[in-house]
Amino acid sequence: MSTNIGARTILALNAGSSSIKCAVFSQGGDGEDLMRLLEVDVTGLPDAPSCLAVNGDGARLAGPQFGAHEIDPETILERLLDWLAEYAADFGGISAVGHRVVHGGMHFSGPVAIDAEVLARLAALEPLAPKHQPHNLMPAKRLYASRPELLQVACFDTAFHRTQPPVAQWYALPRRYRDEGIIRYGFHGLSYEYIARVLPGYDAAAARGRTIVAHLGHGASLCALQAGRSVATTMGFTTLDGLPMGRRSGALDPGIVLHLIGSLGFSVEEVEDLLNHQSGIYGVSGVSDNMRELLNSDSPAAREAIDLFVYRAVREIGSLTAALGGLDALIFTAGVGEHAPEIRRRIAEGLTWLGLRLEPRANERNDAAITTPDSAVRGWVIPTDEERMLAEHTLAIYQEQARHGHTEAAT
Amino acid sequence: MSTNIGARTILALNAGSSSIKCAVFSQGGDGEDLMRLLEVDVTGLPDAPSCLAVNGDGARLAGPQFGAHEIDPETILERLLDWLAEYAADFGGISAVGHRVVHGGMHFSGPVAIDAEVLARLAALEPLAPKHQPHNLMPAKRLYASRPELLQVACFDTAFHRTQPPVAQWYALPRRYRDEGIIRYGFHGLSYEYIARVLPGYDAAAARGRTIVAHLGHGASLCALQAGRSVATTMGFTTLDGLPMGRRSGALDPGIVLHLIGSLGFSVEEVEDLLNHQSGIYGVSGVSDNMRELLNSDSPAAREAIDLFVYRAVREIGSLTAALGGLDALIFTAGVGEHAPEIRRRIAEGLTWLGLRLEPRANERNDAAITTPDSAVRGWVIPTDEERMLAEHTLAIYQEQARHGHTEAAT
Repeated sequence: MSTNIGARTILALNAGSSSIKCAVFSQGGDGEDLMRLLEVDVTGLPDAPSCLAVNGDGARLAGPQFGAHEIDPETILERLLDWLAEYAADFGGISAVGHRVVHGGMHFSGPVAIDAEVLARLAALEPLAPKHQPHNLMPAKRLYASRPELLQVACFDTAFHRTQPPVAQWYALPRRYRDEGIIRYGFHGLSYEYIARVLPGYDAAAARGRTIVAHLGHGASLCALQAGRSVATTMGFTTLDGLPMGRRSGALDPGIVLHLIGSLGFSVEEVEDLLNHQSGIYGVSGVSDNMRELLNSDSPAAREAIDLFVYRAVREIGSLTAALGGLDALIFTAGVGEHAPEIRRRIAEGLTWLGLRLEPRANERNDAAITTPDSAVRGWVIPTDEERMLAEHTLAIYQEQARHGHTEAAT
Repeated sequence: MSTNIGARTILALNAGSSSIKCAVFSQGGDGEDLMRLLEVDVTGLPDAPSCLAVNGDGARLAGPQFGAHEIDPETILERLLDWLAEYAADFGGISAVGHRVVHGGMHFSGPVAIDAEVLARLAALEPLAPKHQPHNLMPAKRLYASRPELLQVACFDTAFHRTQPPVAQWYALPRRYRDEGIIRYGFHGLSYEYIARVLPGYDAAAARGRTIVAHLGHGASLCALQAGRSVATTMGFTTLDGLPMGRRSGALDPGIVLHLIGSLGFSVEEVEDLLNHQSGIYGVSGVSDNMRELLNSDSPAAREAIDLFVYRAVREIGSLTAALGGLDALIFTAGVGEHAPEIRRRIAEGLTWLGLRLEPRANERNDAAITTPDSAVRGWVIPTDEERMLAEHTLAIYQEQARHGHTEAAT
């Protein structure tokens, strides 16, 4: 890789409770595509941090080193940022940082440059996503304190869904709850936005038409796209709603929560733990939260967990098809969506009534196009890239600020 | 009406918290259809009871009289039963009583003759339906105490849904919760069973095929019928789930309940009251829980409540269509379903992608058949009759016991 003086180098940071994913992208000049220089994944936080770093060609690098003992997340982040700064120095240093932030609330419907006021607004949303939001914000707060002049951009998982028609965002609660922010936010927005952005290169008609994207990973949701804009999605006020996930329950009669607390004596914390960490395909199978392990298991309970996951996905695809008034294409993405042909096959079998016809060998090979030429609904496997989406948003604001600064100076 | 000595006279009782509906049916001889002799509706319980009694021809009768002041429900029931016994004396007295009981739990998958053990089992289910089950059981308990020899039959709103495939009954919770009875029970089963029973007379192909029944009343749910058997339904563990209703929220992210209790400091009782009594079209509109009033209202909030109701119905019909693998017929029933052409029209507009084509004048007239001859999905308006279903179940057990008794005596 050649050193490129004057290049824009963007750090994309996706910091969670148990992992920090980051990627460094560089743009040589205006209009050029962002090139991925580096990817670093820190996992096993906080107890047993381990790190995998690869360059843009996928070759392994000697990444930052952490001790085997517990280190607090702030220290790990410092070491990571030091290492990244050193690495990026070759590319003129980091121009800007984009952060994945799960919750933008009702206020933020797009990426925003971070300042003290924005940080305060985002911290105020922590009660809406206590498992994610504080972890997402920690690096932004620290960088803002140490390098206030560095452009930082917050990119929200909720923002992409603010195009949903109002009726798709409402719960049937008294209006004041809606006004106070109890609405269907939807999540995984950066993934859906990335898919919507690349979709024209795969299926131009679907990009103009009616598409469902199945983001099936450890977290899982579906999004209905009308001409590339979100019109409905399965997650709601929180990331619990919709499909069963690795360890999350998905949709649940609210009466169950009331029963657990009111009749069975659970505390709120116990129910939160149950629904977020003990449920989903893990809870049903009693075996694993990993779909690959369940697919390889002989346990009848593992089979039941897969059956339930597929059944709920088919039902929710029916619901989103109704929101779209029909379906042109179904796109699978994220870990399970990209790499589990059997799950795609079984979901597709539940959709033959829509005219979807899988091409079995293409599906087994994880090809991009996985349906037959005469399939009324086209099926695709498209890898998602949330870090690239973070970098693109961040670069756009960087360029806008550069232009704005130039204009101001000129007038 | 002629007195018919030797007739079987069945009392159907549907006792709730604010109303008691009852109907008396008579069968002249084996194989004859049950004839409705009488219907009595007591409403306004417990504060301001009022009573409407009509005979089988719909002519008003002087029913039992209650004071304008509050009377306890037991006293009201006694007066009602005395009045009914006197009325039924002309028909040889009451042969058996059928009770609507909302919850049959995991144990009861069909109607059952009431004895002390059954009463105890049903009382044990009260925590699963505290708003309904105790009221449903009160008349059965009193009659069992005063007339233990009288055949009483419990008919369950949940029983019809026990034919659902297991995967449709599961939540993605750890298996022990399923074993302990936290499953999707589904409700309105007596209504769906009645529709399934009369459907062949309207649409023989749909009766063998794939049908969705929309029971849209003050409570509202949908049921997917495959060859007349329930394979999926929108209500779940409780009567809260699924569609927005008069005052119930319908489906809600479980995270909202946790947020209300854990972050906003609500008690369980306050959330129960909010979701059962302050939400639904009443909560959204702030105007009324009555669809007719909302349709006649100029309030934008009333319009929003209707929009949300229609939108959620269309989405859930999509989900149930996926469960069925396509759709042959859509049936509207219950108060709103039978009498609100605008609601049917708007739901149908959301289903043109399924090939449903409404015949506007037939729909306006509340005709039975409301779609055009070339509609790919046939639409019907079919009045439901839960009391008749109660009477049929009760008569069947009465006859079975009579045969059984006869056989025993003969051997």
